[in-house]
Amino acid sequence: MTGTLYGVGVGPGDPELLTLKAARILRMAGAIAYFAKRGQAGNARTIVDGLLGNAEQLRLEYPFTVEVKVSDPDYHPRMAAFYDEAAGQVAARLDAGADVAVLCEGDPLFYGSYMYLHDRLAGRYRTEVVPGITAMSGCWSRLGRPMTRGDDVLAVVPGTLEAARLAERLALADAAVVMKAGRHLPKIRAALAAAGRLDEAVFVERGTMAEERILPLAEAGDSGAYFSLVLVPTRRRTV
Amino acid sequence: MTGTLYGVGVGPGDPELLTLKAARILRMAGAIAYFAKRGQAGNARTIVDGLLGNAEQLRLEYPFTVEVKVSDPDYHPRMAAFYDEAAGQVAARLDAGADVAVLCEGDPLFYGSYMYLHDRLAGRYRTEVVPGITAMSGCWSRLGRPMTRGDDVLAVVPGTLEAARLAERLALADAAVVMKAGRHLPKIRAALAAAGRLDEAVFVERGTMAEERILPLAEAGDSGAYFSLVLVPTRRRTV
Repeated sequence: MTGTLYGVGVGPGDPELLTLKAARILRMAGAIAYFAKRGQAGNARTIVDGLLGNAEQLRLEYPFTVEVKVSDPDYHPRMAAFYDEAAGQVAARLDAGADVAVLCEGDPLFYGSYMYLHDRLAGRYRTEVVPGITAMSGCWSRLGRPMTRGDDVLAVVPGTLEAARLAERLALADAAVVMKAGRHLPKIRAALAAAGRLDEAVFVERGTMAEERILPLAEAGDSGAYFSLVLVPTRRRTV
Repeated sequence: MTGTLYGVGVGPGDPELLTLKAARILRMAGAIAYFAKRGQAGNARTIVDGLLGNAEQLRLEYPFTVEVKVSDPDYHPRMAAFYDEAAGQVAARLDAGADVAVLCEGDPLFYGSYMYLHDRLAGRYRTEVVPGITAMSGCWSRLGRPMTRGDDVLAVVPGTLEAARLAERLALADAAVVMKAGRHLPKIRAALAAAGRLDEAVFVERGTMAEERILPLAEAGDSGAYFSLVLVPTRRRTV
């Protein structure tokens, strides 16, 4: 009998933010698979350091990091070939009867890297996705400010949107999260100022990790780390 | 020394979806507090049934359920007085030196009932919020379809919005979650049809619980349970 594919959310960084279910699956899986960049341990793999059993560890190493740009016509075909090959390695373990847990930072189906394997394998093997604490939830919990109440609308927007569209979406929302903020802070600041929300915006870098930084966006400088986002909590007050 | 206030997310329903940190805090807390309706066990309390230590259990019972309508001028003052009184009960334990864990379904700062106590106590006592798996994340994991990829925009909107505004927000988003859907299904269907997304919408009722139902929104009838939402996953494909 073939094994089960598990997409396992390992949360935003603090190893204690794994779920009981994720921890159980990591203990019982026959193989643990994870993506990593050349020369690095892999963030998802690092989070679960103290939680693994005797599973085979399957490191799926990206074929390049910054040498090939996203704008290069070779980028997407080469990444697709890499994901095909990675899916083949996971499938070989599933065919051999092993349950395979694919580690994914945050939540697997919410901007997660696990989806490249899910797309290729979920139709062919029994599959279960274990949700994880998202980066945004880890960050607003550390901030300790209510994000959404009652009938609030929340917008989750990428920092890569151009400023006018970013401002448009922020103006329509009661609360907002700007993802992938690190390289786009001046633009995000301009969009939040245009939407009248700059004073309420908070920058969180490496939330829930040892190196965490939390400060008003206005004081955050022009560039942050890869693991960073901007939170705009609701204005609504409680009864 | 006064105790610490913990806002503890207990997830969407499946007790295995608590985090390791939440489980540790429930074991060590001096008191566990939770909201419940008259005659009911309390949903958050039920989720943690097998996970409690010897803590004092502090049941905070709502003064009314449906007898007083939200539109009644007495509703908000009476609820505010109830939350003041509940905060006083929690404060008494903190003053006596006990750590108090307030249980909250899903994630405490994301539409959570814990915020009524946080607003009243977080400035006065050491406070820590433990994030939980949100209902939406529990539901899309059970559905097993990627929700957001790459640079997608996600909109989280309440089913209480009127249809035209709902359609406007849905039209701007790559992926969407409609919260509090149960009583508003015909309106939500109309808004999704107007936004051209009805065929992609999925209704999830009591996600991750034993009575879970997952079906296309078009087939979901006109009314669902309190614990229900609508998911509109991204159209974007993988490489």
